[in-house]
Amino acid sequence: MRKLRLGMVGGGPGAFIGEVHRIAAQLDNEIELVCGAFSSDPQKSMNFGRSLYLDPERCYADYHSMILQEAKLGPEQRMDLVAIVTPNHLHFPIAKLAAEHGFHIVCDKPATLDLAEALELQHIIAKNDVRFALTHTYNGYPMVKEAKHRVATGELGRIVKIVVEYPQGWLSSKDNENSKQAEWRMDPARSGISCCMADIGVHAANLAEYISGLEITQLCADLNSCVDGRSLDDDGTVLLRFNNGARGVLLASQVSLGEQNNLKIRIYGDKASLEWQHLNANELRISFADQPSQLLQAGVGTMSPLSQANMRTPAGHPEGFLEAFANIYRQFSQQLRAELWQSEMPLAALDVPGIEQAVRGMAFIENTVAASASTQKWHDFKLSPMDIS
Amino acid sequence: MRKLRLGMVGGGPGAFIGEVHRIAAQLDNEIELVCGAFSSDPQKSMNFGRSLYLDPERCYADYHSMILQEAKLGPEQRMDLVAIVTPNHLHFPIAKLAAEHGFHIVCDKPATLDLAEALELQHIIAKNDVRFALTHTYNGYPMVKEAKHRVATGELGRIVKIVVEYPQGWLSSKDNENSKQAEWRMDPARSGISCCMADIGVHAANLAEYISGLEITQLCADLNSCVDGRSLDDDGTVLLRFNNGARGVLLASQVSLGEQNNLKIRIYGDKASLEWQHLNANELRISFADQPSQLLQAGVGTMSPLSQANMRTPAGHPEGFLEAFANIYRQFSQQLRAELWQSEMPLAALDVPGIEQAVRGMAFIENTVAASASTQKWHDFKLSPMDIS
Amino acid sequence: MRKLRLGMVGGGPGAFIGEVHRIAAQLDNEIELVCGAFSSDPQKSMNFGRSLYLDPERCYADYHSMILQEAKLGPEQRMDLVAIVTPNHLHFPIAKLAAEHGFHIVCDKPATLDLAEALELQHIIAKNDVRFALTHTYNGYPMVKEAKHRVATGELGRIVKIVVEYPQGWLSSKDNENSKQAEWRMDPARSGISCCMADIGVHAANLAEYISGLEITQLCADLNSCVDGRSLDDDGTVLLRFNNGARGVLLASQVSLGEQNNLKIRIYGDKASLEWQHLNANELRISFADQPSQLLQAGVGTMSPLSQANMRTPAGHPEGFLEAFANIYRQFSQQLRAELWQSEMPLAALDVPGIEQAVRGMAFIENTVAASASTQKWHDFKLSPMDIS
Amino acid sequence: MRKLRLGMVGGGPGAFIGEVHRIAAQLDNEIELVCGAFSSDPQKSMNFGRSLYLDPERCYADYHSMILQEAKLGPEQRMDLVAIVTPNHLHFPIAKLAAEHGFHIVCDKPATLDLAEALELQHIIAKNDVRFALTHTYNGYPMVKEAKHRVATGELGRIVKIVVEYPQGWLSSKDNENSKQAEWRMDPARSGISCCMADIGVHAANLAEYISGLEITQLCADLNSCVDGRSLDDDGTVLLRFNNGARGVLLASQVSLGEQNNLKIRIYGDKASLEWQHLNANELRISFADQPSQLLQAGVGTMSPLSQANMRTPAGHPEGFLEAFANIYRQFSQQLRAELWQSEMPLAALDVPGIEQAVRGMAFIENTVAASASTQKWHDFKLSPMDIS
Repeated sequence: MRKLRLGMVGGGPGAFIGEVHRIAAQLDNEIELVCGAFSSDPQKSMNFGRSLYLDPERCYADYHSMILQEAKLGPEQRMDLVAIVTPNHLHFPIAKLAAEHGFHIVCDKPATLDLAEALELQHIIAKNDVRFALTHTYNGYPMVKEAKHRVATGELGRIVKIVVEYPQGWLSSKDNENSKQAEWRMDPARSGISCCMADIGVHAANLAEYISGLEITQLCADLNSCVDGRSLDDDGTVLLRFNNGARGVLLASQVSLGEQNNLKIRIYGDKASLEWQHLNANELRISFADQPSQLLQAGVGTMSPLSQANMRTPAGHPEGFLEAFANIYRQFSQQLRAELWQSEMPLAALDVPGIEQAVRGMAFIENTVAASASTQKWHDFKLSPMDIS
Repeated sequence: MRKLRLGMVGGGPGAFIGEVHRIAAQLDNEIELVCGAFSSDPQKSMNFGRSLYLDPERCYADYHSMILQEAKLGPEQRMDLVAIVTPNHLHFPIAKLAAEHGFHIVCDKPATLDLAEALELQHIIAKNDVRFALTHTYNGYPMVKEAKHRVATGELGRIVKIVVEYPQGWLSSKDNENSKQAEWRMDPARSGISCCMADIGVHAANLAEYISGLEITQLCADLNSCVDGRSLDDDGTVLLRFNNGARGVLLASQVSLGEQNNLKIRIYGDKASLEWQHLNANELRISFADQPSQLLQAGVGTMSPLSQANMRTPAGHPEGFLEAFANIYRQFSQQLRAELWQSEMPLAALDVPGIEQAVRGMAFIENTVAASASTQKWHDFKLSPMDIS
Repeated sequence: MRKLRLGMVGGGPGAFIGEVHRIAAQLDNEIELVCGAFSSDPQKSMNFGRSLYLDPERCYADYHSMILQEAKLGPEQRMDLVAIVTPNHLHFPIAKLAAEHGFHIVCDKPATLDLAEALELQHIIAKNDVRFALTHTYNGYPMVKEAKHRVATGELGRIVKIVVEYPQGWLSSKDNENSKQAEWRMDPARSGISCCMADIGVHAANLAEYISGLEITQLCADLNSCVDGRSLDDDGTVLLRFNNGARGVLLASQVSLGEQNNLKIRIYGDKASLEWQHLNANELRISFADQPSQLLQAGVGTMSPLSQANMRTPAGHPEGFLEAFANIYRQFSQQLRAELWQSEMPLAALDVPGIEQAVRGMAFIENTVAASASTQKWHDFKLSPMDIS
Repeated sequence: MRKLRLGMVGGGPGAFIGEVHRIAAQLDNEIELVCGAFSSDPQKSMNFGRSLYLDPERCYADYHSMILQEAKLGPEQRMDLVAIVTPNHLHFPIAKLAAEHGFHIVCDKPATLDLAEALELQHIIAKNDVRFALTHTYNGYPMVKEAKHRVATGELGRIVKIVVEYPQGWLSSKDNENSKQAEWRMDPARSGISCCMADIGVHAANLAEYISGLEITQLCADLNSCVDGRSLDDDGTVLLRFNNGARGVLLASQVSLGEQNNLKIRIYGDKASLEWQHLNANELRISFADQPSQLLQAGVGTMSPLSQANMRTPAGHPEGFLEAFANIYRQFSQQLRAELWQSEMPLAALDVPGIEQAVRGMAFIENTVAASASTQKWHDFKLSPMDIS
């Protein structure tokens, strides 16, 4: 056995999420960054790769050359997987080329620029028999795993209602609009048809489906641009219906001044309910009709195997965003390793957000935008591209 | 000067809110309960009044005789105001009779059975020149007053978004349906066209309008009956638009298992935002784009006069639901006393939810039910009765 | 049956705790204030009594005349009990006179100026066969009752350690020294040999003994005056040993700037532990070695009868300081009524801090001051007056 | 420039803290693990090193051979620094040998078995001109840095009181005594004269001195063994006096059932006070006498350069224990790199707990044990070894 070899596209200087990918991928010592095309400027890409102590020969000028060159290297040297850390519009062409050359893929969300691309990518992935992981980070928290486990075992009973919210405030004024993080997200050519829903609403929707095991079937959406001059949404609320009849509400906002990634989910069943909040990620609250609420702390008492497989430290040592992100990489790495060395596949290794989640995420974005544009209250959730204009 | 004399209709044995009214009314030693018609059963009413140490002659068999008899007493003896603490369908006839005999009124919310009654009551109140207070308890908390003050002074800037939620779980199963609290609330003949929205949604809507100083102009509603066999809503979400263009979301639920009166409001402005939660009522959080959040504690540092006028103890002494309820009575009492003795009206005395709030509350209920029944997404908020069937 | 009749000594204009006593005593409609000597200035006392709508004839110039005059009234008119709400040095003479005239007593803590007086008062109380209640308010919270119940049932196992803290910050500078609340507390002639320990440390000690059912047997104390020019302590820490061998720490401070009555107690057993905090009084946390912590909410699920007997509202309606204070009065009133009308004594009625707690409280103060003055580490807790100079 | 090369002694299979060191050291891509002697069993050490993908030639049988062999390698290959991750009694001989061969040192706390060793190590470190870092992890949190900064700028005024507590519950029964983590900590031959104070009390003492910038000058200690049959302390409280006259209390416990690393510190000044809690590590609360408390969130608004230098992600992305640990490595790495490549030393690079903290920590342990054994209340804090028997 050996470490898996990772290449990266995007994530150059100033791109916060590139650094997150690098730390997360390498945190558990099972993956090693070996090459990259970090910037659209070849010289920047080269310099940046050197600052990461990469072999200068493997600091590429662009993703084309990276994928083509790496494909030519021998099996003991070439990268195994590629991390795509660019603005949304580049996800698809990079993923396509990578898949066609047999490289596995870790991709930032949302998976593509639109649903049509996502569906095509699903086809390409299958055809080329490569693995695909989508970095729905919040899935990676141990107490989110525990929450999913508790729902799955029936502890909550029939799910009746889901409230999921993801407020941020960083776009509450024009001040931030020209920052590296903001400018492409607000540009339809690079971000797609949505800013807020594509950036964070999709995380909230995924989290609701992931923990509950349910699927959204209908929605009623109200997307807004609260700051003048924006062509894409910076805030929105979506009423939801799930496939078991449960109702839901999803709130996402980038103009909720004073909030920072305050993702929170409450799932109400007819036997018990649960609450998880990102800013207090190591805790999970379970409430009952007529017993005291339980506060589960990560690592305390009996936790599900899935939850345990996503912790590195004993109870009382807070793990955070980087560790949750690393959990996605770790499970994906275990999935790839089990295949590569034909060892037994750990259960947790299959618990990685993949191309199905990628497709559902893009569908969520398009359905939400379509629903918001409609004067009809309810809109059926469809998995086929829709005409939005 | 003397204490004001209070009569009560309803609130007999087992009625939790009757005891709340009695404690709240008398907490500040400015109002004294002198008579009542506490139960629809004359003997029960009599016995209950005696258990409260009332003069047996003033323990009445029904509200008619109470109002008529009290009206005949001399000015040094007869009651000044009446508290209406019955199921919704009796509010209007009692209030009408009281007003026509010159008694001031404290009424539980929702004010009447429907909007038409509320509008008629508004007319009756004006014509008979009596005062009317509606017990929107949550308005009575000092930090809600402070929140209103902060919005009014412009500290939050332009309000962009309001999220208000009022989850309860006590009706999450059929178990409670036959309790004294539940059975009439779920009966359209006594409760009106809504259960959840009429009971708690209306509190949430009032709180949002009260603190923000804005008015709801449009709504999109999704009301549900999550437990089989119920004819009225036990859960609902309402998307809101306010008269300044702000968006909002209101969540109310009686099937959110594990929750107890977890009323919470967040108001986001373009300069600052605030958050207040009923279960931590003595605190108010104000957040900014680029400064530390502030945690205001009741009584600490400089508070607005309106807030100070609604506290009885120094900082560090938690005041709760009964005190908030008592604040409604206290301010209303000051209003009445200023009139009676022609003394100066304290500013806080005018800050009592009155007949306008009563009408808006009933309108909220009818508009929400109508909006929920519609297949159109948006519904204009109207102040005239609507045909709902 | 009738309401009990209360007289009050002290608690005139500006005395926050006087108003607390009046509200608390009358909250449950079983006690009525009928007379008072509210101020050392006879005219002030008279005017203040009138502002409370008392019979002018029963607004007395001083406590002597009040007790003597009331004693002369017939049994259908005279007061049943007296509330003593003065600076500490007056507690004893007032209580003595009241007891000797057959009046029951509610007394602010600390009970007397020194331990010798407390022991003498204990004798007087017994000899005159009157009842005595000490307002250790924090005992009155429902979740404190629940905590006591949980310890008593053995749920925590053997108690190993107790940490109790009561930080305040209101005396952290000289600014407040001349306030009505501060000036007598810092004057040995009226406050006794301690300021901080006598004012709040004694609450903390009482709470620890009350919940745990243990008694302090040894202590090691470090009392401080953190602000220049003070002759009494404004801060202190006390190491404790209890009669079962458990260790403890008590922190009390009036110079912990930014804190307001932040009383908190943690009791660790060998099976479970508990935590209660005054500023979140309606919650009790119980933790275990290898199960999730439980968050008990007042009124949710099964609560002990003692706890239930100290609530007025269902779960989700925060009750606070005034209600806790009222619980002392309510239980004391039930005790007196059961005796007066020879009805059955409710269990909760015996759960009132009485003269034994008064004596132990005074002993705590004297032992702490003596221990602090000693160069020896450990000091035996004694119930006899000690020479401190 | 290149990555620094790290060797590790100890931290083999099952040793939680070894994995923490490896993740932390490599998190920021500036240090690379190149060799190790991970276990006292040569074969285990070898196998473990291979599982980490190390060069088999550099998986050593013991620390002697590792240090001697590495010293023989050329400057382009040999390790730069060694991490000591063994039970306490081995820290000194390993550190001594490493220093004598010119290797820099990262050492787990407490630094040595006793104070005499620490003082000798200080001498050896100086003589051999190597750098030494002690992993006082909690120093590494960004909001601890911010706290230190706030005290240093005078925002709190004169420090009056410090309360620091570190409760754990994992040794509250005999059940855990034979675990790998517990057995050596409870054995005087490997742990030294203290268990609880040496393991966590020393963290609390360091944190108090680190943030406040003060030094402990006197103490009064009460150490306990709460579980039968233990020869070392598992719980204790220490009263403190600091060199500016401030008082303090330090609580440490391993028998506080239900607690996990619940380190918390409160520092009260005469202008403001602060509170930081490990389990909510990304927040810092600052309170004032008469203004709202401030809640500082990591990354929100203006933070000190020292604090910023210890974050990797923007506001709203919780960083935890591993990142705090990594901060110690990062700052130490920057210190070494600045020396190695003679570049400018970043200010933050000097903010690493070093040999002085190591000596003070060992002195804290010995002084506390001596003070606890004494019948005198106060004990002067000494920096010279003391006779404890």
